[in-house]
Amino acid sequence: MKNKKKVNAAILIIGNEILSGRTQDKNIAFICNWLNLKCGISVAEVRIIPDVEKTIVKNVRTLSKKFNYVFTTGGIGPTHDDITAQSIAKAFKVKYGYHTEAYKILEKYYGKQKFNDGRKKMAKMPKISKLIYNPSSAAPGFITKNVLSLPGVPSILNSMIENCKKYLTKGLKVHSKTLNLFTVESNISKQLGNIQKKYKKDVDIGSYPFFRLGKIGVSVVSRSTSRIKLSNVNKDLLKIIKSKRIKILNI
Amino acid sequence: MKNKKKVNAAILIIGNEILSGRTQDKNIAFICNWLNLKCGISVAEVRIIPDVEKTIVKNVRTLSKKFNYVFTTGGIGPTHDDITAQSIAKAFKVKYGYHTEAYKILEKYYGKQKFNDGRKKMAKMPKISKLIYNPSSAAPGFITKNVLSLPGVPSILNSMIENCKKYLTKGLKVHSKTLNLFTVESNISKQLGNIQKKYKKDVDIGSYPFFRLGKIGVSVVSRSTSRIKLSNVNKDLLKIIKSKRIKILNI
Repeated sequence: MKNKKKVNAAILIIGNEILSGRTQDKNIAFICNWLNLKCGISVAEVRIIPDVEKTIVKNVRTLSKKFNYVFTTGGIGPTHDDITAQSIAKAFKVKYGYHTEAYKILEKYYGKQKFNDGRKKMAKMPKISKLIYNPSSAAPGFITKNVLSLPGVPSILNSMIENCKKYLTKGLKVHSKTLNLFTVESNISKQLGNIQKKYKKDVDIGSYPFFRLGKIGVSVVSRSTSRIKLSNVNKDLLKIIKSKRIKILNI
Repeated sequence: MKNKKKVNAAILIIGNEILSGRTQDKNIAFICNWLNLKCGISVAEVRIIPDVEKTIVKNVRTLSKKFNYVFTTGGIGPTHDDITAQSIAKAFKVKYGYHTEAYKILEKYYGKQKFNDGRKKMAKMPKISKLIYNPSSAAPGFITKNVLSLPGVPSILNSMIENCKKYLTKGLKVHSKTLNLFTVESNISKQLGNIQKKYKKDVDIGSYPFFRLGKIGVSVVSRSTSRIKLSNVNKDLLKIIKSKRIKILNI
């Protein structure tokens, strides 16, 4: 653990269907949780962009320079609007074409006779990419430099995520502690602000209203790579809660 | 309708709780749908960023220059991590402080005695802002130049969205047509690509796999500001569907 550093990532959701409101995204929360809990990697930014080559190229370049990893979702299927692979090749100025291993996997999966042009397209990607295997529907994802490309369909993405692990350097895990309080934010905002100041660089304290059992409440979430500092913040929070006689829903 | 032009917007989701994976965002799809259907405004980009002033300032500047409107969500409550209002003031280099009208609304809502510092904070915003009224919990949103700031709690945001309308110039409405087909993408990918080429600039055709009634299917979604061109695309699609004897789930 001692040698580990903070590692971050960005997520780039590629798809008109999310921007039109037709599809409710489910991949962002899933990837964020998985990276946090399994890899100690924090997601620092998410962008959702349309299926437009120029836009994909620009965003891949920007985000891959700025963050340790970039996860793209969507646009790696067989149809004309699936342009993620070719856009990533352009972004990095590397060769795009049939990937030998991906071609073999797909040919075996569909059988030579049913391996038509649409299906063959899913074997096209940057030549330098390494594969992210897909146990659901064969068509692999791929990693190009520090950019990992996954499909948009949540059930397929979920089944592939563990296969990303071998390409990732783990970072310091962020621990979190949540206190669900039956109070309103403005009742504790001053004190929360003071505690946040005290632990400025070490602990992030967030405050989120909730509505449960017909009552208004506030979830106070503390997050830190240090368990000790997290525990200190918790002690300070409990002092306020006690002095203000606030009921805790659960700890 | 004839004078209308394409109008676009970006959404800037501000909140560590979305990036940590703790909270599943529901505002993106809601705002995208509302802007599309009610205002003829297309969402061209979404970003999710942390509660960090420097990051908010930078993104507000970039997006407000690039798009007709920017919608921010989150960070306008009473606690220390609510820094959207002050960040927008910095982004536009305008004065930040108590907004007379917002102060009056909140003071009336809470009563003078219960109007504490946390609650007063919700009346602080760029002085030049105009208010977006909040019928749920009084604390108003606000518009600063072309940036509309809404809260992060979905039920409150939903109740306020209609009050944004008066600040928006409506654009050309994008119509859409969906065909749900019992086939696989690779069976129609070539033909879809040809139709997309034919209507390159006028119609966007998207293809999205679905799983229903134990079968795999594809939703083909066409989107255009022209009903006539949309209808032409639909005719072309129906020809392919007929020639390939593909079953339609519904039109």
